[in-house]
Amino acid sequence: MSAPSFPAASAAVRPVIAIHGGAGTLSRGQISPEQAEAYHAALHGILEAGQQILAAGGTALDAVCLAVKLLEDCPLFNAGHGAVFTSRETHELDAAVMDGATLAAGAVAGVCRVRNPVEAARAVMVRGQHVLMAGEGAEAVAREAGLAAVSPDYFSTEARRQQLHAARARHAGAVLDHDGAAALAGRPLDEDRKMGTVGAVALDARGHLAAATSTGGMTNKQPGRIGDSPLIGSGTYADDRTAAVSCTGHGESFIRVSAAHDVCARMAYGGATLQDATQAVVHQALPAIAGTGGLIAVDRTGSVSLCFNTEGMYRGHARVGERPQTAIFRDEPLV
Amino acid sequence: MSAPSFPAASAAVRPVIAIHGGAGTLSRGQISPEQAEAYHAALHGILEAGQQILAAGGTALDAVCLAVKLLEDCPLFNAGHGAVFTSRETHELDAAVMDGATLAAGAVAGVCRVRNPVEAARAVMVRGQHVLMAGEGAEAVAREAGLAAVSPDYFSTEARRQQLHAARARHAGAVLDHDGAAALAGRPLDEDRKMGTVGAVALDARGHLAAATSTGGMTNKQPGRIGDSPLIGSGTYADDRTAAVSCTGHGESFIRVSAAHDVCARMAYGGATLQDATQAVVHQALPAIAGTGGLIAVDRTGSVSLCFNTEGMYRGHARVGERPQTAIFRDEPLV
Repeated sequence: MSAPSFPAASAAVRPVIAIHGGAGTLSRGQISPEQAEAYHAALHGILEAGQQILAAGGTALDAVCLAVKLLEDCPLFNAGHGAVFTSRETHELDAAVMDGATLAAGAVAGVCRVRNPVEAARAVMVRGQHVLMAGEGAEAVAREAGLAAVSPDYFSTEARRQQLHAARARHAGAVLDHDGAAALAGRPLDEDRKMGTVGAVALDARGHLAAATSTGGMTNKQPGRIGDSPLIGSGTYADDRTAAVSCTGHGESFIRVSAAHDVCARMAYGGATLQDATQAVVHQALPAIAGTGGLIAVDRTGSVSLCFNTEGMYRGHARVGERPQTAIFRDEPLV
Repeated sequence: MSAPSFPAASAAVRPVIAIHGGAGTLSRGQISPEQAEAYHAALHGILEAGQQILAAGGTALDAVCLAVKLLEDCPLFNAGHGAVFTSRETHELDAAVMDGATLAAGAVAGVCRVRNPVEAARAVMVRGQHVLMAGEGAEAVAREAGLAAVSPDYFSTEARRQQLHAARARHAGAVLDHDGAAALAGRPLDEDRKMGTVGAVALDARGHLAAATSTGGMTNKQPGRIGDSPLIGSGTYADDRTAAVSCTGHGESFIRVSAAHDVCARMAYGGATLQDATQAVVHQALPAIAGTGGLIAVDRTGSVSLCFNTEGMYRGHARVGERPQTAIFRDEPLV
């Protein structure tokens, strides 16, 4: 894969990382202060880890890959360990990564044995032959790269299994029993509405941008469905000339508007600012096709946008030298 | 899937369809006039079929789906019957379709039992729940839609099998024997260079645009690789406000620049004409990452662009009321 390096932005930019853990509908009343605190703490810790890489002069690519790996490892979020179940009670994990300096990209779809799908995506990118590998072919690349493998049940958690059973019951028109209702409660955002994804975007000290996204997909989804997360241009995009973008939401809508690439195109061709470009995609292009969700983006000057049209999005950002800031609900200041 | 209809262009536009059968490197000396004529005749016949639909007031969507179905059925082109073989001597077919009037889209990846992958892509679109389905999940949608099924060996042709064996021999550093060399000759464009795809774009009498793409992938490819053809925004895109686009070439490069969506974005945000937008993608954005190939596009006014940076692209277009025009090589007038 050829690798032209675009001119980096001013060296005066301060490195920054932003992450998301999915967007969804509000269930504020169902969450205790302790539960909200668990999400804030997880987001803070992951932002700090990414921040440390950037502070040490590390690359945006390394920072977003580490952040997404940690989000995958955290059972609170729908990616990696703690991923939702398909209708067959299996897992099909997708991930993508893109390097804005070279437009190099890698992605995997439908994997269930590599411990960290984002690392498999990076292995596909580094290998350079292909961009998107599905299923067994993707697992083979991960094995060849020496990545940690797990049994598919590593990704399973009891909470997600109950979520599947509740979704099935609801799909069947059944009244939820206590366990089913409990499975849908206790999480700030109703992830059963198919919004679960994690992602990270970063700008490093050399002015390079990178984006990464990972997901466990939709609870009770049909096997074989591929959403926007592993699709370069749809759920993930990075170009040093404009921005790095990672999306979360109703994947089909993000695919139909090429959401991640559209943010960059509005900046490149229309001269839009990052804020204007992300607002236009999230509050105009997506709603025009009833698309719900959000995205995080950072541009070459270090501007950050955490933008969503749902009731909330697990989100945060951290500039080198500043305390990470996180938020869950809409109209909630970053803390 | 919600379906906003964008305002149609002037009713004065004359419907038009354009098709491609892949782009590649020149081997003009290896082709006889009779062989070239076979390609021209196939392209002409398929354009006439699409033209008839448009002349009768049919939709752009119907026209592109029929044209791609006929391209799939024709063994000259690398899609459907006559698709190339993977490294395991199997077939993995991909296809996509998009309706510019509603941004509805459907795609399938890695199918080998539905006779016409483009019809499976349309079935996914019509079903509306998902946009991209892979493997068995895609086959299931095709079965539920009542589409014709075939044995995987339906797609196999002796010429493609010899092409695989020749590619393997070349990959292994072996000198090609007579059969191997012959397998690579006799086709105007060297499809072994991974350029094989078919596609169609159309504008109908109501001012609506549509695009469809289908491919048998790359000879000797690793199973699981997904190229740009089934990826909305990469190899296929349609938006009534700008253009319908179908790409062919080194798929990974088209993914990395979101080629099909990028044409539309340059028009929508930068005010580029169709010609300027397609030239910029094919002769600037793609070469910047060493991307080879081409695309066909039509805009809402009926302008057509058949644009490629390789030695040739099987291509043609037909306006209602005019004789279809086709060409193979660069610097060759449409005839």
